[in-house]
Amino acid sequence: MNEIRQNKATKQWVIYAPARRKRPQDFQERHNERKNLPVLDKECPFCPGNEHMLSEILMEMPQRFQNSWQTRVILNKFPALTNDGDTSRFSQGLYLVMPGYGQHEVIIETPEHNRDIAQLSITEVGMIIETYHQRYVNLMQAHENMMTLIFRNRGTQAGASLNHPHSQVIMTGIVPHAVRWREEEAQRYFDEWGRCVYCDILAFEMQDRQRIILENQSFVAFIPFAAEVPFEVWIMPKRHQADFGQISNEEKPDLARSLHDILSRLYTKLHDPDYNYVINTAARYKAYEPQLHWYLQIWPRLTTQSGFELGSGMTINPSIPEEDANFLRS
Amino acid sequence: MNEIRQNKATKQWVIYAPARRKRPQDFQERHNERKNLPVLDKECPFCPGNEHMLSEILMEMPQRFQNSWQTRVILNKFPALTNDGDTSRFSQGLYLVMPGYGQHEVIIETPEHNRDIAQLSITEVGMIIETYHQRYVNLMQAHENMMTLIFRNRGTQAGASLNHPHSQVIMTGIVPHAVRWREEEAQRYFDEWGRCVYCDILAFEMQDRQRIILENQSFVAFIPFAAEVPFEVWIMPKRHQADFGQISNEEKPDLARSLHDILSRLYTKLHDPDYNYVINTAARYKAYEPQLHWYLQIWPRLTTQSGFELGSGMTINPSIPEEDANFLRS
Repeated sequence: MNEIRQNKATKQWVIYAPARRKRPQDFQERHNERKNLPVLDKECPFCPGNEHMLSEILMEMPQRFQNSWQTRVILNKFPALTNDGDTSRFSQGLYLVMPGYGQHEVIIETPEHNRDIAQLSITEVGMIIETYHQRYVNLMQAHENMMTLIFRNRGTQAGASLNHPHSQVIMTGIVPHAVRWREEEAQRYFDEWGRCVYCDILAFEMQDRQRIILENQSFVAFIPFAAEVPFEVWIMPKRHQADFGQISNEEKPDLARSLHDILSRLYTKLHDPDYNYVINTAARYKAYEPQLHWYLQIWPRLTTQSGFELGSGMTINPSIPEEDANFLRS
Repeated sequence: MNEIRQNKATKQWVIYAPARRKRPQDFQERHNERKNLPVLDKECPFCPGNEHMLSEILMEMPQRFQNSWQTRVILNKFPALTNDGDTSRFSQGLYLVMPGYGQHEVIIETPEHNRDIAQLSITEVGMIIETYHQRYVNLMQAHENMMTLIFRNRGTQAGASLNHPHSQVIMTGIVPHAVRWREEEAQRYFDEWGRCVYCDILAFEMQDRQRIILENQSFVAFIPFAAEVPFEVWIMPKRHQADFGQISNEEKPDLARSLHDILSRLYTKLHDPDYNYVINTAARYKAYEPQLHWYLQIWPRLTTQSGFELGSGMTINPSIPEEDANFLRS
């Protein structure tokens, strides 16, 4: 019979229904729009030479041995939020409204149109992590900035409109609902046990080993016990740290190695699936609290959320986490 | 500049970014898999004559003047939950697990393969509503059943695997996270104001009129002030009632009329888009509380959720609710 598992950190339940399961092979039989892309696409605004198509360039990291950029940060041309205005809330009839204050950036991860993270060198992935960190620290300097979310959409099913490898950064002046929920549940766990729930999860997983895919000195990558979708992966720092801004220079290359390794496994074993990832981190004022722990969450888009998920906030996962981990590990 | 609006009922924020907007015409230029379907598809398990492909038939409602069924309720062949087992929770290492107790049904809405709700008569839609209600009441009889969610997935982008018009019913032995969150926020509002937040929203919308699409004696259909996606519609009973089970026989035809009208407008004006709908209702033990109010929520699948939504629980809506309402109303 099926089972329902609880996410220890958020108390969300997930239904496991292996009768609805596809085999990993079935997940491989998709088609994506990324076959045979050119190194340089003259229509692509993120490719070198098309700078006139970009809005403002905020920063660049140079290539090591060449006179060119390796990563480039720009303002999103169609931003969700902009940094004019402020965070004041006002009434509109019955409702609350606030200006669309924030910032929306794009990180172009490489000058080459057709090389995704799985094809980059560890050094190049390290430069993406370094760019993430620099933007994060920069955006969290102002006190009115509550939250900075770094995320990546890969493929049209994951909401990406451009193929050129890129991530996005959105800074907001509010703490979004899902972040607050996660913080409140972590606080309740800390009140009960006096420990970070994520540290406890990590300790249990490292002892249990069933769901671990890989481990290095600073990071562990595993399928969470209550994975919401097939092949969901969490990459979590071993050292307790609430806030992504606290990552050390020693840890960054280890994160790059873990991320590159996991994305290469997805690329090879699941044939370049569409996916999202996001760095789940603390909002301002929670950044130094003892109960939170940042992690990078990867969400392959192999299934479609339906009306049940919409109404319940609870997913139906046709895949078993231990089997998914075994498949990615082997 | 963009704005951020708060959902008065759940306190969730939604970002409005009209610079990212598509015009309604752009939403019409999709292709779906539902062009030129036959009346009867011999491969379709839901079509008459293919009963051998079905699992157990639970009930049928007869056609009025013919010796045939009009709606038919079956057990889902690949159920998310099943009614063996119970609702006991047990530990597995650090985590909580429970058996996959519940029930997963499919409501076949018409014998005809190619007539969707927009093409049915009001009487036929009324029979779908009557079927929803009978299954709801039936499933909520047992005390261990906490929640019954009735939902509809239309099209592959909405998670449907079959084209034959159908809805689904999932009964669970737990209260899902999103339902609990909605209830807790409604309770907080009631504690503050002594009124149902949904009744207040309804009263405000009926006075403001900007977002109303249609109204009849028992129901109002409107775009919510903080719609999460373009053309999201709520159909809400005017009479305060926490639980869908409390709908009266007088109200059912009015719900059928509202639902048929809204889905016909989506069909015609947005060219048969994929969508989900779900009846958001109270969990057991909250069914008679004064602070809740059920409603039917329609979620067209015209945009794709990205890593930002995944990490924040907050959507970016390129559409303005007042303009969407105006477009559907005209």
